[in-house]
Amino acid sequence: MNIGIDIGGTNIKAVLVEIGGTIFSQFSIATEAECGPDHVIGQIHRCIERLSLMIPDGHTLDGIGIGVPGSVNHAHGLVLHPPNLPGWGEVPLGPLLAEQWNVGIALDNDANCAALGEAKFGAGKNYNNFIGLTLGTGVGSGIIINGNIFHGDKGFAGEFGHTSIDYNGPVCGCGGHGCIEAYIGNKYIVMRGMELILHHPDSRIYPIAKSAPDTMTPKLISQAANDGDATALEILFDAGSKLGIAIANAANLLDIMIFIVGGGVAAAGKPLFDGIISSARDRVLTVHRESISIIPAQLGNDAGMLGAAALLSRKQ
Amino acid sequence: MNIGIDIGGTNIKAVLVEIGGTIFSQFSIATEAECGPDHVIGQIHRCIERLSLMIPDGHTLDGIGIGVPGSVNHAHGLVLHPPNLPGWGEVPLGPLLAEQWNVGIALDNDANCAALGEAKFGAGKNYNNFIGLTLGTGVGSGIIINGNIFHGDKGFAGEFGHTSIDYNGPVCGCGGHGCIEAYIGNKYIVMRGMELILHHPDSRIYPIAKSAPDTMTPKLISQAANDGDATALEILFDAGSKLGIAIANAANLLDIMIFIVGGGVAAAGKPLFDGIISSARDRVLTVHRESISIIPAQLGNDAGMLGAAALLSRKQ
Repeated sequence: MNIGIDIGGTNIKAVLVEIGGTIFSQFSIATEAECGPDHVIGQIHRCIERLSLMIPDGHTLDGIGIGVPGSVNHAHGLVLHPPNLPGWGEVPLGPLLAEQWNVGIALDNDANCAALGEAKFGAGKNYNNFIGLTLGTGVGSGIIINGNIFHGDKGFAGEFGHTSIDYNGPVCGCGGHGCIEAYIGNKYIVMRGMELILHHPDSRIYPIAKSAPDTMTPKLISQAANDGDATALEILFDAGSKLGIAIANAANLLDIMIFIVGGGVAAAGKPLFDGIISSARDRVLTVHRESISIIPAQLGNDAGMLGAAALLSRKQ
Repeated sequence: MNIGIDIGGTNIKAVLVEIGGTIFSQFSIATEAECGPDHVIGQIHRCIERLSLMIPDGHTLDGIGIGVPGSVNHAHGLVLHPPNLPGWGEVPLGPLLAEQWNVGIALDNDANCAALGEAKFGAGKNYNNFIGLTLGTGVGSGIIINGNIFHGDKGFAGEFGHTSIDYNGPVCGCGGHGCIEAYIGNKYIVMRGMELILHHPDSRIYPIAKSAPDTMTPKLISQAANDGDATALEILFDAGSKLGIAIANAANLLDIMIFIVGGGVAAAGKPLFDGIISSARDRVLTVHRESISIIPAQLGNDAGMLGAAALLSRKQ
């Protein structure tokens, strides 16, 4: 059996699965990231211990997969400067866990794990090749080729969020211009949405934009859109359209036609997906127009830990 | 031994190679594309016949690889609507050749073959992963992953020329906006260059731009640049800078750090490459800045036929 752990800035999610994917047990504990790396590593050990006690008689623990909120040096099992885990720098998490648990350990980036989770158990089960996108604070992504994560030269493949759709476009957190993250990342959707809302006093979220702009969230915009608010619908459709342009670029480059979209912002549903699909179809080469397909992720927040648990099967 | 054939709109290039890559014989004949598919297929047969007579005693013909100027249906060995071969539509070139020659036949797109040629025998020999770009009328490209051509879902991967760097940018032949081909394809370089030249009467190519604009070519611009003409240098640097943006996008998405650039426009050399390199470094994520590398192709016009000859070895 495999254990999968998804380390987030707020919670650690843990799961015990049979190789085939049957979930035996799962739970979540607080990361308490502010207490530093030693404490978080202690939390991870506690998760593994708790799950290993649940392994039924006649079964053994085959491996532990870990999804981390940052980059990974695969050769040495290092976690590299995860932005939401204060004090980590470079941590040899792989060797540290291997020493204690004496089973195979695999690490990967959380967006890669989420894509692999969808590949093995979710919306990607029937596709050899797809790109999994997680829309939230940033735009995470994992590229699945022949059912496995594609890592590129240094293990950093999948920075879809930092592909640009306009070299003169708005500045992104990475310093680039027109990165798709600078259109559809949480705060950017809100920022761009606010401009529109303030021009539409008839919008139901105008009062919030006017009196408490700091409390505006993609979720409030989504709720208004689901209630039929035209301004909110336009914001989501426009954000989706921008994402569709970046998707068309990736599809033209790679002839990968399946894009599985999840994460908090994706919960906006139809208005966002309508924007993505219409713009991707419009922008992609004619030969791909019928085959390009943008579909919602199925596993929600469980994708990461399930994908982490599958990292080991991948290596076999 | 393998035979490699590169079918161009003007010439067919043919080579006989040992599996290891030693060239035994090579030559080129006119395609005479205007005479239609049956005639061109006859020309291909003549190439194969001529080369097969040169196979030394004790050696056998193992396979024939063909690079075609268009898309390929790999499952059925079909050539699909090659734009520069009039009357072709869909031609089952693979089965037609297999029937006659009774050896393994492999077809692929010419840009893919050129990239594979560089991978096996040229500038890509020491790299597992790279993107090969051929700058000419359009922007051809082949994606090499683990030393082999990456095909994507339908065999159409590698349309790097139709990745957009500006969703509001100039219209491309494909109907898209801001495709990199619409900045750096032969006619687009000239078109954009002409605007600049006509504002610089001191440029040595101003008289041509003024009196015989239809005779302007990327080659004339390159020659002027090599003689130190500031306007020509600016045109090439700017075109290179645009390509660098598209390269940075692909590098961020794939963590592929090697870009091998060939084709007629690449002959412009340093001013073009300076533009590509400075813009790619500037635009790529910080983590890639040291590792991204843009290098000239080594095999010139021979890349396609050599890559075609290597298509079969790939399958072994």
